[in-house]
Amino acid sequence: MMKELHHDTIIALATPSGSGAIGVIRLSGDKSIDTVNRFFESKFKNKDLTRVKSHTIHLGYLKDEDKILDEVLVSIFKNPHSYTGEDVVEISVHGSPYIQQQVLQLFLKNGIRHAHAGEFTLRAFLNGKMDLSQAEAVADLIASNSETSHQLALQQMRGGFSNEIKKLRNELLHFTSLIELELDFAEEDVEFADRTQFKDLVQRIKTTLKHLVDSFAIGNVLKEGVPVAIVGEPNVGKSTLLNALLNEERAIVSNIPGTTRDVIEDELVIDGVRFRFIDTAGIREATDEIEQIGIQKTYEKIREAKVVIFMIDACALSKTASCHTPKHDKVLRKFEEELKNIVKKYPDKNILMVVNKTDKIDRKDYLINTEEYQVIEISAKQKTGLKTLKNELTALADKGALRQNEVIVSNARHYQALHEALQSILQVEHGLNSDISTDLLSIDIRAALHSLGEITGEITTDNVLDNIFRNFCIGK
Amino acid sequence: MMKELHHDTIIALATPSGSGAIGVIRLSGDKSIDTVNRFFESKFKNKDLTRVKSHTIHLGYLKDEDKILDEVLVSIFKNPHSYTGEDVVEISVHGSPYIQQQVLQLFLKNGIRHAHAGEFTLRAFLNGKMDLSQAEAVADLIASNSETSHQLALQQMRGGFSNEIKKLRNELLHFTSLIELELDFAEEDVEFADRTQFKDLVQRIKTTLKHLVDSFAIGNVLKEGVPVAIVGEPNVGKSTLLNALLNEERAIVSNIPGTTRDVIEDELVIDGVRFRFIDTAGIREATDEIEQIGIQKTYEKIREAKVVIFMIDACALSKTASCHTPKHDKVLRKFEEELKNIVKKYPDKNILMVVNKTDKIDRKDYLINTEEYQVIEISAKQKTGLKTLKNELTALADKGALRQNEVIVSNARHYQALHEALQSILQVEHGLNSDISTDLLSIDIRAALHSLGEITGEITTDNVLDNIFRNFCIGK
Repeated sequence: MMKELHHDTIIALATPSGSGAIGVIRLSGDKSIDTVNRFFESKFKNKDLTRVKSHTIHLGYLKDEDKILDEVLVSIFKNPHSYTGEDVVEISVHGSPYIQQQVLQLFLKNGIRHAHAGEFTLRAFLNGKMDLSQAEAVADLIASNSETSHQLALQQMRGGFSNEIKKLRNELLHFTSLIELELDFAEEDVEFADRTQFKDLVQRIKTTLKHLVDSFAIGNVLKEGVPVAIVGEPNVGKSTLLNALLNEERAIVSNIPGTTRDVIEDELVIDGVRFRFIDTAGIREATDEIEQIGIQKTYEKIREAKVVIFMIDACALSKTASCHTPKHDKVLRKFEEELKNIVKKYPDKNILMVVNKTDKIDRKDYLINTEEYQVIEISAKQKTGLKTLKNELTALADKGALRQNEVIVSNARHYQALHEALQSILQVEHGLNSDISTDLLSIDIRAALHSLGEITGEITTDNVLDNIFRNFCIGK
Repeated sequence: MMKELHHDTIIALATPSGSGAIGVIRLSGDKSIDTVNRFFESKFKNKDLTRVKSHTIHLGYLKDEDKILDEVLVSIFKNPHSYTGEDVVEISVHGSPYIQQQVLQLFLKNGIRHAHAGEFTLRAFLNGKMDLSQAEAVADLIASNSETSHQLALQQMRGGFSNEIKKLRNELLHFTSLIELELDFAEEDVEFADRTQFKDLVQRIKTTLKHLVDSFAIGNVLKEGVPVAIVGEPNVGKSTLLNALLNEERAIVSNIPGTTRDVIEDELVIDGVRFRFIDTAGIREATDEIEQIGIQKTYEKIREAKVVIFMIDACALSKTASCHTPKHDKVLRKFEEELKNIVKKYPDKNILMVVNKTDKIDRKDYLINTEEYQVIEISAKQKTGLKTLKNELTALADKGALRQNEVIVSNARHYQALHEALQSILQVEHGLNSDISTDLLSIDIRAALHSLGEITGEITTDNVLDNIFRNFCIGK
């Protein structure tokens, strides 16, 4: 159905709703210029919008019969040199919701249809102005709220890896046709496709796909925010630390209420990277069923986290500090136990041991051996050591990959398709090496072609398009 | 200070903040085109924005050194053919608040200043692109939320009465110079200014001013909403009526909490006119001090109202209806007393007697003589009679004046200045007729010139400008 939609002319408000200096209403389709022209009266002389050049702007009144709706600027974009590839008109009106509604109504009652969510971008895709991964990047770009998510979206919008995928897919398509030709001549036992060249191509595709699939681990984290689990006693200063970081960055994104009483997420952007700090209940022994669930949740969060911060009170850690009390011994024992537990359970996790309240102790006569851990000493209250902590966090976020203009996959749908394409290519590789029959080989190649085509949109279903574009805003 | 501001180049977001398909960032000033050009990279070929024609649109990337901020459309407006009369650039970016902030920051750190509220329109005024009353109309236009407030703002923006005021003022100025010339030759007793012609001009000015001053009664009501006071027993169906009207119009503007427990305002737009319905406590005898205040408030509201609706239950009014109970007799007595009271106190008010719940009675055997009142019979519950009521209300709103393209003053500042100008002109007229000395006459003429000049902005103070433009949004 979605592919069939693009024959009429559509309209939508392109700017956020609400009051402002101006609002922009956008039309796209064959009738857009002609229709706007019917209701436009140039301010200085009679001007025919159907005869003006593309990419020009015209001042005048928008009139419904004798009634002036507004003084407007009309921008004309002629196909194919427009966002959608169709004739596009942008009407810049005064930023009153009332006026915007009046203008929309004028066109809606004169044969123009209200656009569906993402329909302008859908048309851009259907008219070949961008491939599917570029179209998806438009939505990511609008949603971007940190330097990294912004850069990821821009990279993808400019072609990112989809150009390379397209090229590899075309090469694969070429070989497929040769291989399938062999099937037609099966009885003659001929080989049109050079097996050595083909193996080489499969190798190149495999390498590219592997690289892209692996990059998702970084890309997803950069796009969705780096998950950081914080483990520590309630009074160890977790919220003081988060507030100190927030105040420094003045860039709180949101407080996401936890799904259990024990998990609370705070988002914050450090040096362009979004981090999701997840305060966990800790891993102490459960005394009842509810606490048991809390602890299980903590383990889950630690497993999902890219970085785990173990926070301990310097007073608990220091043998001789005047602030050290007998109660601290128990706290410290539990802390060490939990830390060892997690290091053992997740040997590949980035674990930071953060010693807080260091302003309260004089000497680092620590009661546990900290040599095997990465220790960062801070005072959340005095705001010391925060810079070191932030540097460590951004280093662990692999932001560097983005800086070096490496191609990074951040879209879950692409990851899925790349992953499937890789599986098929591995099958093809296996088939080539084990000399399976050409018709079986052909099936695996077809599967790989399909998965690759899904990324760029060379192969789409209404279902896929529907899923992608329904998440767009109306007007884009 | 405000007049001095317009030498640097300013920038602001022109569209509402928030996520949308696009956002527009606007620059105005000498350096705007050159500065944008420094950070703009055309997508197709090297393009120099400083050399393109006015009113053209250009696709490309906005870059901060090597970092791409966004793919943008840049619209170029060359002075004086722009909104402000200066060089103006509009950058259409993707509708992400993050991107908009990045773009603003880029220019703010490169010599562009963030615009103050209304500064683009202030510059348009200072550069002679519009007079002051037109500039004020821009803010009214953005705030307009009904057909009438919209039409009033448009009329004012297109020149409205200010062109006529300007013309009359220039004629007056001409006579003033002649009159003041006479002062220089006072000893010779000459008359440079033809007194007959001068009297004629003063007459014309007086007539115009009177007409405009009188129009404010209509204009203010149309702009701010027609105040309708509703008087009636709590259970007579006032809220049912308002809800029925609201549902029909689907155009609730707001519920304004009353300033006392007895006054509640509901706003609603009927046939393009905004009405403010004020539910009053009624005018019954006060039993305590608080109720006394409530009743005083009711009187105030009735005095301010353009229309007063007296609502009565048909059951109370009908002698034979099965729903008529002995309690109704007291209600009816009080109703009639209050109605007569108000008719006597405010003989010029538009008073509508609304009989509700007419679905409950069979015959109109009313217990009071309704002939001297304008009676509208409705059933708020059954939604009958509402159309008649609405027609009556819109007729009373004097919307017709607007339809006939009469010039209507709706701005309180203009009203004040017109009123003062009229007083001065009446003084001038009196002076001319009573043959006062030319120097005294000259003082009155100067006062009239001053008041007239204030309307169009030919005479302004920083204070006046500051008051007007600080109510604009930033970016306009």
